[in-house]
Amino acid sequence: MKKISILGSTGSIGTQTLDVVRQHPKEFKVLGLAAFNETEKMLEQIKEFKPEKVCLFEEKAAEELRKKTGIEVVFGIKGLEEIAVIEEVEQTIVSVVGAIGIQPTMKAIKKGKNIALANKETLVSAGEPIMKEAKKKGITLMPIDSEHSAIFQCLNGEERDKVSKVIITCSGGPFRGKKISEVYNASPEQALGHPTWSMGAKITIDSSTLMNKGLEVIEAKWLYDLNFEEIEVVVHPQSLIHSMVEFVDGSIMAQVGTHDMRTPIQYALTYPKRLSNDFPRLDFFKNNNLTFEKPDFENFPCLGFAFEAGKKQGTLAAAMNAANEIAVHAFLNKKIKYGQIPEIIKQAMDSHKNKLNPSVETVLEEDKKARKTAEKIIEELGK
Amino acid sequence: MKKISILGSTGSIGTQTLDVVRQHPKEFKVLGLAAFNETEKMLEQIKEFKPEKVCLFEEKAAEELRKKTGIEVVFGIKGLEEIAVIEEVEQTIVSVVGAIGIQPTMKAIKKGKNIALANKETLVSAGEPIMKEAKKKGITLMPIDSEHSAIFQCLNGEERDKVSKVIITCSGGPFRGKKISEVYNASPEQALGHPTWSMGAKITIDSSTLMNKGLEVIEAKWLYDLNFEEIEVVVHPQSLIHSMVEFVDGSIMAQVGTHDMRTPIQYALTYPKRLSNDFPRLDFFKNNNLTFEKPDFENFPCLGFAFEAGKKQGTLAAAMNAANEIAVHAFLNKKIKYGQIPEIIKQAMDSHKNKLNPSVETVLEEDKKARKTAEKIIEELGK
Repeated sequence: MKKISILGSTGSIGTQTLDVVRQHPKEFKVLGLAAFNETEKMLEQIKEFKPEKVCLFEEKAAEELRKKTGIEVVFGIKGLEEIAVIEEVEQTIVSVVGAIGIQPTMKAIKKGKNIALANKETLVSAGEPIMKEAKKKGITLMPIDSEHSAIFQCLNGEERDKVSKVIITCSGGPFRGKKISEVYNASPEQALGHPTWSMGAKITIDSSTLMNKGLEVIEAKWLYDLNFEEIEVVVHPQSLIHSMVEFVDGSIMAQVGTHDMRTPIQYALTYPKRLSNDFPRLDFFKNNNLTFEKPDFENFPCLGFAFEAGKKQGTLAAAMNAANEIAVHAFLNKKIKYGQIPEIIKQAMDSHKNKLNPSVETVLEEDKKARKTAEKIIEELGK
Repeated sequence: MKKISILGSTGSIGTQTLDVVRQHPKEFKVLGLAAFNETEKMLEQIKEFKPEKVCLFEEKAAEELRKKTGIEVVFGIKGLEEIAVIEEVEQTIVSVVGAIGIQPTMKAIKKGKNIALANKETLVSAGEPIMKEAKKKGITLMPIDSEHSAIFQCLNGEERDKVSKVIITCSGGPFRGKKISEVYNASPEQALGHPTWSMGAKITIDSSTLMNKGLEVIEAKWLYDLNFEEIEVVVHPQSLIHSMVEFVDGSIMAQVGTHDMRTPIQYALTYPKRLSNDFPRLDFFKNNNLTFEKPDFENFPCLGFAFEAGKKQGTLAAAMNAANEIAVHAFLNKKIKYGQIPEIIKQAMDSHKNKLNPSVETVLEEDKKARKTAEKIIEELGK
């Protein structure tokens, strides 16, 4: 029985992770859960999964929950970190959103915990120090993202130095085929209409700008120690081939499946085993047409920004990611236009002073600075 | 440097195998070559690859070649077997066509040679005794067929008991979508117009009737120890996904590539390594549409025959395969109509007395008997 903690247990990935646990009650024991402030949802999860310790972000909410349940309830970033490193936990699932995921992940790695990772910032912003530490500790960093899980599965039983390229597939988002001028004034509702995957708002907007794919490219770089020349993005609107690896002999391995995130989550939790489940199966007679297109770097400049930031290394990707988060947030709150998202990111990147070989602390400082820069840019735009 | 023998060196697979050797002169040393009677081609191969010993089928041709080259030239089935088991050979490539491949393969296995197999009859007709012996000797039977190579690659690093099904893809052949009545009188020229792969005449006709896929289903059963309920055939006209494996967690691994047979041949020769080569690479922006259809068992009855023969085991698959060979030969010689191919096979299968747990000798006897039966049926039709 594998003992796990879930950071971000009430979010999309967190609840689906618990669904995987529900499928395999004899395989997993939940020791820790952490969420933002969703007290009611957390209460239900406590009743069902009986963790030893949970965390809510605010002290007051934590105290109330402690009174209601009688179990240990911690709070704040320190609390989050405590859940990540509970003594007996073997694998920590990091599914919180945002830069807040970086430090608990680092602490868990330092304590020798295996990681199942759904938090983008951990690798996008802090890939360098995180991977260095993971290597040092010999821990496995299992990807939860369907694309990275696909790559991981394609590399199964293969030699890393025989990879000629990694082909990351991309749905193209709701604005695939459109010119930037056509979508410049798109509403949040339009941008949230993702064609294949059902996800949170931030990531759905990122999918529409292709920034999400850009972030995945950077994550793939760190996870699989790739050069950016070895990473190709292919638009595949049906999102059924989750990604591929081409080897030096010309042979390509692909991982294919439904749009059910529980499949890659389960794999991250059970690897190297595969466990049976009752999740839906892919039917090739219904999903009978797979198509491929070139990504449009001109009308979706965020993808190019990510390649640029990734290649330059240092803190530039952290700055890009932070500026993107602020810009998307502003767009969702109708403070800026859709077409201004890449403009803001570009400005923030241009004014960033890149710091090479950063520590996690440096990454977090630069992340904060870039947020302020982006906020200023948005203020200026509003004048 | 791996020492190899090639049975059928002047045929389609044989010459492509030598092309793989040509790509990797430091990896392989050809010790033996065997062909039917293509003296000129063999002479060229001797000059280029300098084998120790070669075989031609006829004694006279062998003698002439011996005089011309000064090297050891053997002949007949015995000669073929000699080439298969040359002392220092580590891997024997069996790419002869027809039941003649069975015994040399068995002898090579008994001598502990690893096998790269392109001969269908070895597994279709004699799968049971061959696999028993291979298991006993602990030798690796590497598939050369693109479909079986794909399955092998999908199983790489995976546990066999976690397979939920094997999905064998099938181009559908030149008559895909047609009714049997529409193609009943098709000419050999029409049936030879394969949409994707360039292959020999016999296998191309088998592709048009889907018998080829049926034979592959039986081969897959023996190679991967599958039940027929675990094998699904999916028509995929572009033939770029060469086959897939679905695992118990719902995840599907697929192997994808061009139509260049040298890729699976090379893999069979270099496994578990992958070597780089200059063979063409698949471009998803040119091959940008993959489609899937259900196979049509009604208008392509040969596929159903193969499932039936495979399930019943014993010598029925050998009889089916023998009758098919005779029928296809008669069709190519314009002695029967295209639509009569399945009719003849069905009659031959119906009159076959199945013998369970056969030895190679029994298989060969039943193969001969079924050929005679099929010939008689054809004679009757001609009256």
